[in-house]
Amino acid sequence: MDLAAILARIGAEMAAAPDRGRVADYIPELARISTEPFAMAVCTAEGETFTTGAAETAFSIQSVSKLFTLAIALGRLGDQLWTRVGREPSGLAFNSILQLEHERGIPRNPFINAGAIVVTDAILAGHQPREVLGELLRFLREAAGEDDIHINKAVAASEQATGDRNLALAHFMRAQGNLLHDPVLTCGTYFHQCAIEMSTRQLARAGRFLMNAPTMPRMLAPGRVRRINALMMTCGHYDGSGDFAYRVGLPGKSGVGGGILVIAPGRASIAVWSPGLNDQGNSKLGTLAVERLARATGWSVFG
Amino acid sequence: MDLAAILARIGAEMAAAPDRGRVADYIPELARISTEPFAMAVCTAEGETFTTGAAETAFSIQSVSKLFTLAIALGRLGDQLWTRVGREPSGLAFNSILQLEHERGIPRNPFINAGAIVVTDAILAGHQPREVLGELLRFLREAAGEDDIHINKAVAASEQATGDRNLALAHFMRAQGNLLHDPVLTCGTYFHQCAIEMSTRQLARAGRFLMNAPTMPRMLAPGRVRRINALMMTCGHYDGSGDFAYRVGLPGKSGVGGGILVIAPGRASIAVWSPGLNDQGNSKLGTLAVERLARATGWSVFG
Amino acid sequence: MDLAAILARIGAEMAAAPDRGRVADYIPELARISTEPFAMAVCTAEGETFTTGAAETAFSIQSVSKLFTLAIALGRLGDQLWTRVGREPSGLAFNSILQLEHERGIPRNPFINAGAIVVTDAILAGHQPREVLGELLRFLREAAGEDDIHINKAVAASEQATGDRNLALAHFMRAQGNLLHDPVLTCGTYFHQCAIEMSTRQLARAGRFLMNAPTMPRMLAPGRVRRINALMMTCGHYDGSGDFAYRVGLPGKSGVGGGILVIAPGRASIAVWSPGLNDQGNSKLGTLAVERLARATGWSVFG
Amino acid sequence: MDLAAILARIGAEMAAAPDRGRVADYIPELARISTEPFAMAVCTAEGETFTTGAAETAFSIQSVSKLFTLAIALGRLGDQLWTRVGREPSGLAFNSILQLEHERGIPRNPFINAGAIVVTDAILAGHQPREVLGELLRFLREAAGEDDIHINKAVAASEQATGDRNLALAHFMRAQGNLLHDPVLTCGTYFHQCAIEMSTRQLARAGRFLMNAPTMPRMLAPGRVRRINALMMTCGHYDGSGDFAYRVGLPGKSGVGGGILVIAPGRASIAVWSPGLNDQGNSKLGTLAVERLARATGWSVFG
Repeated sequence: MDLAAILARIGAEMAAAPDRGRVADYIPELARISTEPFAMAVCTAEGETFTTGAAETAFSIQSVSKLFTLAIALGRLGDQLWTRVGREPSGLAFNSILQLEHERGIPRNPFINAGAIVVTDAILAGHQPREVLGELLRFLREAAGEDDIHINKAVAASEQATGDRNLALAHFMRAQGNLLHDPVLTCGTYFHQCAIEMSTRQLARAGRFLMNAPTMPRMLAPGRVRRINALMMTCGHYDGSGDFAYRVGLPGKSGVGGGILVIAPGRASIAVWSPGLNDQGNSKLGTLAVERLARATGWSVFG
Repeated sequence: MDLAAILARIGAEMAAAPDRGRVADYIPELARISTEPFAMAVCTAEGETFTTGAAETAFSIQSVSKLFTLAIALGRLGDQLWTRVGREPSGLAFNSILQLEHERGIPRNPFINAGAIVVTDAILAGHQPREVLGELLRFLREAAGEDDIHINKAVAASEQATGDRNLALAHFMRAQGNLLHDPVLTCGTYFHQCAIEMSTRQLARAGRFLMNAPTMPRMLAPGRVRRINALMMTCGHYDGSGDFAYRVGLPGKSGVGGGILVIAPGRASIAVWSPGLNDQGNSKLGTLAVERLARATGWSVFG
Repeated sequence: MDLAAILARIGAEMAAAPDRGRVADYIPELARISTEPFAMAVCTAEGETFTTGAAETAFSIQSVSKLFTLAIALGRLGDQLWTRVGREPSGLAFNSILQLEHERGIPRNPFINAGAIVVTDAILAGHQPREVLGELLRFLREAAGEDDIHINKAVAASEQATGDRNLALAHFMRAQGNLLHDPVLTCGTYFHQCAIEMSTRQLARAGRFLMNAPTMPRMLAPGRVRRINALMMTCGHYDGSGDFAYRVGLPGKSGVGGGILVIAPGRASIAVWSPGLNDQGNSKLGTLAVERLARATGWSVFG
Repeated sequence: MDLAAILARIGAEMAAAPDRGRVADYIPELARISTEPFAMAVCTAEGETFTTGAAETAFSIQSVSKLFTLAIALGRLGDQLWTRVGREPSGLAFNSILQLEHERGIPRNPFINAGAIVVTDAILAGHQPREVLGELLRFLREAAGEDDIHINKAVAASEQATGDRNLALAHFMRAQGNLLHDPVLTCGTYFHQCAIEMSTRQLARAGRFLMNAPTMPRMLAPGRVRRINALMMTCGHYDGSGDFAYRVGLPGKSGVGGGILVIAPGRASIAVWSPGLNDQGNSKLGTLAVERLARATGWSVFG
């Protein structure tokens, strides 16, 4: 299998794609980004890295960060985390408040906003926001084996300024007894974590530990890695998760910045970036590119 | 890997399990069944079959039948089917009517009751219920390579007599223009399909085509098989689908009769049966047994 | 107060109104009706009757019939009826199925479809549909003091043919234990009751007992009449009930045939008919005409 | 009609009532209050005042304050207010967030918490919280013709400390573009308005303008008063509004402090106070007492 050729072909196809989706417009700093860029990077279990497109350009990883805070929380709290957040697909949009009312403040899963806020709240316990953000950056830098990963302060400020919906979720969970800290503190940390910037290549490298391959960096026990992959498969794309599993057949986690991290267990860590989104808020060309990669490589976990 | 020994050990553990769940009580014919029996059968890609427990006892496959009507519908209609039913987890119980109201009569996926009724309605087009049920039995017999698979008329009558909720779903979709036939006709066919009886061994055999292994019977194009597996992973266990993926890591489809068909793509078709259910309506010991099998074999698709 | 002049002026204004609403289109027999006609009739506590427009033309009273079946059910069962149906506004459209799922098959009030079906089911107990419909016609004829009130068989058949949503509600409540009869039987009765035809003048006369005036026919104990008026005020116009109370200030019950029966307690019974509906499914000109009548007469119960 | 005797009898009956409801426990300052007290006051259109029980004891009027901010907002903005808040019963609990999601941040009516927060936000425009609270106190003092009406700072602080659910509502509406000010500012004002203390007699006096009687203080145009009464009838008791209308037949507005203000249009302003609440969050004995008063006086607006 000639991965370099496959990526080159996909890169060319995506460069020519006419319908590139729409950039998220609810965070002003993100609304200004063009839909032009496309990048893809694949790190294999054999230790090789292949890229196409603007793979060195840093972008806002946004909700892909939820994957890494979940890894930290699971490493620290283990299954105790599941008393505060569920493991089921929500069937609703990423920022819905509906289920919280019916289900007593327990978010459906750690990848919808409410769930990710609870995860951040859980790793805040006994720490300052600054410390938690420092730990997250250290985790990412170690996983990626690179140091040049930072928080974009302007994006964080922009999220804060337009963060009412997330503050509503946090106050709501606080009212129901499922938030340990002041919503302003927890959300402040959460807004900064979403504002982390990485290049497509860095993101693929940071995801290598999720392959569960013996040759890769080990950030978490293999059983936990397996389970994070399961959550990515069932819940990684909001109310487009079923469609992603159907089309791509691999676990993945998307962000409204247009990035997606996808894992082919035992085989590869794949990052893709294109800022235009589809109706479910996932990268339009990113999803299409990963679908083509999965078909070309036969990496679907479904046979 | 000594599958015979693994199954023997799991069979012994399950025989001794104190908490065996509760039998579904809303269908009188099923309410009378004991929670005692347990059976498991594994058909490997190498062509071997291993069993433990009451693997020759016939049981009511109930919603596992949805898998086979979906296979027939996809084989006949292809992607056109997806104009009438979605591919997303529902986040709600198997017989919920809520989403239908919000989503204009398009059920979330083919494995909740509303979705399965639409699938049955789709393969009814131009046929008599008797013909459709005949085709389904032929499909199952061919897939299993065995002829002794039948519909239990008493169970079908029992479902019909207590089928108001399914009739409500069907009338509701009819009102929204997503049912081609009289609800009484479509539901009558659906109640009979749910009343099919198979042994655990027969069910494992009937699922072999879903392995997508070259040695196995081919009932459907490999791309479609892959996609059925994806749907089983994200939607196969109602509002317990995320939990099954998390714990087991394999696509599966459960029924309220206590049966589950689970696929290890490229490797094995696994059937398990134990009538006691958990809170989400899936076999309690069946889920536990498959979880242990997946751990012992390392068959999780998630690495 | 010169009621004849007031009605003449309102009649002229309504004849000239440019925006007449849209005829209900989900029942074919009703969809063919013009939005041209307008009629209003007022029966006063002093025994006088005033009309304007096509007040002798018979129209389909549809949901206004719910008022009369409720009166019969309350007369026969008393407060026992409230174990099967609530007394709260639903906040949802007339035929919503949502609340039934959350509230275990107990409809919010007797004026939404689900609630009216339960009321009809309650008065069916021990009787044939034919007997119940006969009793309802006798009640109406006695209340109106006129015999020429009938069921339109073609409209009843049309409702039956397009009654899937109501059948869905009935099966759903049957599944939840809140329907005594076969949904087909109960809904059949309900479809016929909705197909009753009366003229605007007849409807105003049939509503006279709801004035609770000593001079008027007594069909029900005064305490029960008062309470039916209360239900009309809070629930009589589906999810437009608050708006009707705000604008008109009188209890009323509307039907998709374009009729509304409105009560000025102690003072008058008012019927109005114009087939074009507003967004909430209530007669557009009918609502406007009653608003003007209430303003001209000062009959609002709110001071 | 001997109102003094009627009130004396009701007072005696309520003093002896065994089941007195439960005090609201989500605001610590209110949770400490006894369920013993009962008071009732009636101001008639003839200018007389009758009381029974602890009618001079000040209590926290809580949501009854929503009536007075609505009067101020309608007086200042007129019908323009209705672009930001609806006029329909919600069918849900007082602090539900569900409908906001479906209806794009427009609360159903001004008497549920979300709606009252919008009303407070509307009268804040261009003012400081201090000024708005001053205006509200002036309005109340003028309406009551008494000066001794104040805000309880300890209660306001207690509401603020436990106000997460209201802050969630406010942030949610802010995210949907229906809040002009920082949620902390608007909610701060709202918490203080809820902490106003009045005696039962003062509250009955403050409500006199809602009688729409020529002899009474005029705080608002008669047409607007009528409409406030209509809103009280359909929405004044959260998801117990239909039941209150059914049992009492008069417009009213309740608060979780156990107070209710009830209007008999043209006849009387009635205040009642008893801290124990029923399941819908309305004063249990208060509702019962007003029901008996309405029966004894025949003041129901429904004939």
